[in-house]
Amino acid sequence: MRTLNVDLGTRSYPIRIGAGLLADRAQFPEIEDRKVKIVTDANAGRRYLPGLLYTLTLMPEDVLVLPAGEPQKTWATAEKILDWLLEQRLGRDGILIALGGGVIGDMAGFCAALYQRGIDFIQVPTTLLAQVDSSVGGKTAVNHPRGKNMIGAFHQPRAVVADISTLKTLPPRELRAGLAEVIKYGMLADAEFFKWIEQHLDKLLALEPDALTKAIYRSCELKARIVAQDERESGPRALLNLGHTFGHAIETFTGYTEWLHGEAVAVGLCMAADMSAQLGWLPVESSLRCATLIQRAGLPVRPPPGMTAADFLELMGHDKKVAAGKLRLVLLRKLGVSVLSSDFDEKALHATLAHFTAP
Amino acid sequence: MRTLNVDLGTRSYPIRIGAGLLADRAQFPEIEDRKVKIVTDANAGRRYLPGLLYTLTLMPEDVLVLPAGEPQKTWATAEKILDWLLEQRLGRDGILIALGGGVIGDMAGFCAALYQRGIDFIQVPTTLLAQVDSSVGGKTAVNHPRGKNMIGAFHQPRAVVADISTLKTLPPRELRAGLAEVIKYGMLADAEFFKWIEQHLDKLLALEPDALTKAIYRSCELKARIVAQDERESGPRALLNLGHTFGHAIETFTGYTEWLHGEAVAVGLCMAADMSAQLGWLPVESSLRCATLIQRAGLPVRPPPGMTAADFLELMGHDKKVAAGKLRLVLLRKLGVSVLSSDFDEKALHATLAHFTAP
Repeated sequence: MRTLNVDLGTRSYPIRIGAGLLADRAQFPEIEDRKVKIVTDANAGRRYLPGLLYTLTLMPEDVLVLPAGEPQKTWATAEKILDWLLEQRLGRDGILIALGGGVIGDMAGFCAALYQRGIDFIQVPTTLLAQVDSSVGGKTAVNHPRGKNMIGAFHQPRAVVADISTLKTLPPRELRAGLAEVIKYGMLADAEFFKWIEQHLDKLLALEPDALTKAIYRSCELKARIVAQDERESGPRALLNLGHTFGHAIETFTGYTEWLHGEAVAVGLCMAADMSAQLGWLPVESSLRCATLIQRAGLPVRPPPGMTAADFLELMGHDKKVAAGKLRLVLLRKLGVSVLSSDFDEKALHATLAHFTAP
Repeated sequence: MRTLNVDLGTRSYPIRIGAGLLADRAQFPEIEDRKVKIVTDANAGRRYLPGLLYTLTLMPEDVLVLPAGEPQKTWATAEKILDWLLEQRLGRDGILIALGGGVIGDMAGFCAALYQRGIDFIQVPTTLLAQVDSSVGGKTAVNHPRGKNMIGAFHQPRAVVADISTLKTLPPRELRAGLAEVIKYGMLADAEFFKWIEQHLDKLLALEPDALTKAIYRSCELKARIVAQDERESGPRALLNLGHTFGHAIETFTGYTEWLHGEAVAVGLCMAADMSAQLGWLPVESSLRCATLIQRAGLPVRPPPGMTAADFLELMGHDKKVAAGKLRLVLLRKLGVSVLSSDFDEKALHATLAHFTAP
């Protein structure tokens, strides 16, 4: 078991990573004797809720179970959560626990940010994606038909409890989707870590605890370091969006239903690396290493059939990362070194789109 | 024209107070060449929008006009504003202007807090209440059937432009409602200012510009000083709620429709002063001075007919200012000195409720 402290001044918090944490009351010291409510989804609820209720001595009425899936991540569902919290008369000194993947974490965090103008919440991420990514950084949001995460808030959790035992019951496809973000951290900030992933991919896929703990710890550490420099995403934090502008276009195109976020990001990472190589910024062999590792992890490396270059351009125009009408992308200068740029030759973008959307 | 700087570190902002500011482009330097959208209501829109559009060289399609009134301050209206901003494709670097009273300021601020996780906004308060109160402090929210301002966020404006010329077309009833908050600042934090209001009340009611500018400046200054100590309302900021726990109960009882916020607060101020006197904390003559000044300002000093002590107790139980089940109230130790307390003799509360709800 390892603990990482995310340093954000008065909003600092610990991330606890290890096996069996959900069965251990001592991993939740923040609760003290405060009133606690849990928001979860049907999948995470079925798998982990009975154990967590036992650990925290809570009752079923302390839990709101939502249908699972990204399509639930809406303004309407947030309203449902807020209504329920008010019905339950949770006070401003209460705590909300988000038990589940990124969708639950984003939505429960969003509601914790808004409920009576902000209450404490604890993230209990149960997917690899949520453990390495959405539980760090304080971004909370819901989707809108016009774009992903368009409505949201910055709200840091009081603690994150990442129990890697939950990954044993995670569908393999979701495990792989989480690895996409792990690979992303290597690509954007740490070439050594990228190499370590290349060497330990089989152990990660086999859920070897030490490898998993290290991969999660290092991903969170890299993310936390960037977030600490830029809590409100005015500068360096944008680097975390490597692969995400392309990825969000894929998610919007497919209506947030067929593709997992990590799968869309996987393709986005390949596209960002390819475009960086097209620009002559990244050696072609590094771009190929990225695509190879992503493919070895069992992740897609091409957009969905039927999605055209024009679809990408249209959908990327709606992306939050557009500053004053000019598309800005995170690209690679070399493996482990990323840069946010709107100053690139558009030909490279078109070449990448043509290459990836060729029939 | 006077400018007050609200000191909140990186979130500091100016409040500009004076006559004719809406006709002066130089009062809006924050806009630079950024994309601007305006949210307003039918009343403020009819009175001040043509002038402001001319000053800022904006077009009617840059404005969303909402129906006026507190019943509009809902989750559903917030969704409407957010949908419109997305339709208009306002980028993260855009600015939202809230033109109107407290309802518009609270809702537009709430939407600015959530839109793409937070964009800049400028408050242009057009009521005295909004000028002295809701434009300072960064509180934004919508109401919920279970309570006022239950869903919200802290989001500071980039600037506040308070044009006192707008008060000439403000219905007299709304002017008086604003004076309730001005009187509140005297009562809770500054006995000298309270005395100044007693001496200048007639000038304020006659809209004498120097008196108005001073009253707004000093109210904002007192509020800003308290907010700066406690941006997220964990301590001293609660003092600003003097009269509000009683007042919110009245607003909820009357369904947010018949009473103006300032009118409900006016009664709440009388009740808080009375209870402080019942406790023996405040000299009875000070409590009477408060009631007299409030009555001279043309404000109500009794709750609505039919509202009982039991109604107050029930509705105050839902109030945000309840910590761990125990009612906390802001009370007066003397004129100009307030205290947040849950350690009071309940008999005084019951005596005040009985006194104010006697048929």
